Amino acid sequence: MEGTDSLVSLRKIYKYSKAEAGHLKDLLAVESPLQIRLEFEKNHEWHKKDLLVTMRSPGNDFDLALGFLFAEGIVESDRDILLMRYCQRVKPEEKGNVLIVKFVEGFKVDLKKLERNFYTNSSCGVCGKTAIDAVKCGNDVLPINHQWQINPETILSIPKNLLTSQTAFKYTGGLHAAALYDQNGNLLLLREDIGRHNALDKLIGACLKENIDLSKEKIVLLSGRVSYEMAQKAINAGIPVVLAFGPPTQLAVDLAQEKKMTLIGFLKEESFNIYSGEERIKIVGKKIF
Amino acid sequence: MEGTDSLVSLRKIYKYSKAEAGHLKDLLAVESPLQIRLEFEKNHEWHKKDLLVTMRSPGNDFDLALGFLFAEGIVESDRDILLMRYCQRVKPEEKGNVLIVKFVEGFKVDLKKLERNFYTNSSCGVCGKTAIDAVKCGNDVLPINHQWQINPETILSIPKNLLTSQTAFKYTGGLHAAALYDQNGNLLLLREDIGRHNALDKLIGACLKENIDLSKEKIVLLSGRVSYEMAQKAINAGIPVVLAFGPPTQLAVDLAQEKKMTLIGFLKEESFNIYSGEERIKIVGKKIF
Repeated sequence: MEGTDSLVSLRKIYKYSKAEAGHLKDLLAVESPLQIRLEFEKNHEWHKKDLLVTMRSPGNDFDLALGFLFAEGIVESDRDILLMRYCQRVKPEEKGNVLIVKFVEGFKVDLKKLERNFYTNSSCGVCGKTAIDAVKCGNDVLPINHQWQINPETILSIPKNLLTSQTAFKYTGGLHAAALYDQNGNLLLLREDIGRHNALDKLIGACLKENIDLSKEKIVLLSGRVSYEMAQKAINAGIPVVLAFGPPTQLAVDLAQEKKMTLIGFLKEESFNIYSGEERIKIVGKKIF
Repeated sequence: MEGTDSLVSLRKIYKYSKAEAGHLKDLLAVESPLQIRLEFEKNHEWHKKDLLVTMRSPGNDFDLALGFLFAEGIVESDRDILLMRYCQRVKPEEKGNVLIVKFVEGFKVDLKKLERNFYTNSSCGVCGKTAIDAVKCGNDVLPINHQWQINPETILSIPKNLLTSQTAFKYTGGLHAAALYDQNGNLLLLREDIGRHNALDKLIGACLKENIDLSKEKIVLLSGRVSYEMAQKAINAGIPVVLAFGPPTQLAVDLAQEKKMTLIGFLKEESFNIYSGEERIKIVGKKIF
């Protein structure tokens, strides 16, 4: 039996626009880890091997495992697989997150292929809770400086600012940007890459090199969506405020709330959504929806 | 010395719109593999370890390596690193793609952390050429059936079609879709995921399960961008025509051209760009730019 789809999750957010602001409920994409475990026969014995942990939307996990194994050249068709099932010997919160793929007897698993390319194990267990627990953080949570609040108008000024700077993105539409701003919305550093993760890694690396303390009244803008791994990188680097053009996943929001990082998504020139850490944004005299 | 930036590359494309069509030149985002190799001292001897291969935009590679090592908890600051340099003992085409990070003497590399999480080696060497050579393909190239050509109007009808079907995406804006269409633009299958790769894996897996032959007059639509790895998955699955709302990278286009896959990007309701495999699109009586 394959798990039922649960692609979205309802959360309370704070929507700010020039005309009005207030709390409302919004749907977020659910993100949770899936571990794929292989069972194969070799020399008349059955062996187990953890193949990878991937962050994914729950649902259609059997398709995911089959398609992945095919795309990576490990199986040629579903006839190579005897059965797939979810491991039952897991903690309650990990249920449906460990998928066992059992190959037909005599099927030769190319262990070399398995070793070369994948996340072979998870540091974080295979549920959202353990994933969040595993995020290290110099201080347990990101400190909130009540003397420091960002003006919403500063935040709204940033999209236009980036689009005039991010030259390669502008020309190709195919790059991601990670950009560092001071509290007044002045661009300090910009890094671009085809990969969202790489763009943020480049920005964090550049700050380390230049001795820029990311935790001190800094704002980081990401051009894409904010997944768990992106939020994790930002928190580990001590970044207090992350803005993104795209939406965050539910797990990124859970993590940001736990670690008290301010997380803003769907940033446009007229509005943005606050998913976590409203305390750092100066909002007064607005209507509530 | 860090490599100079070369984020974009000029390529000839075929732009089709309702009013006119023809060849023009367009900028694509460059994508190429970077191997990060660690050198560390242990028991008075220097050791080497290949950490990972990542596809990235060239440029700011030192920032990328430093930021990545920091975000993953391997270094605490750039003081843990003695020097970074590009390996010179590589093939000419791999130049600038192998980065050596040498830690300071006595720095303890947490090998367990290194093992847990990363692409540990590359199947494909570390340049675009070897990456392309490494893509397996049942037939050397995807066969072209000259009896089968897709009407551009069919292609233009697909975006609207997806947006009415892809429910979770519609509600969150945070999911990717991979969708299978027949040659008349009828939706056959849809899979969604927070990850682009997962969405395509799920679609390919579902087709294997349902015995749908992807190579027979099928069209696959991807909601995002097309990177090398996405093109690789599609080609390995024998998909002849890939459409995407986003742009492809230069390496994805090189691969598609080599394997004769039709690759269309920036698909909108009024226009699209053909990057590879024009032969499968029926275009007559249009103006040339």
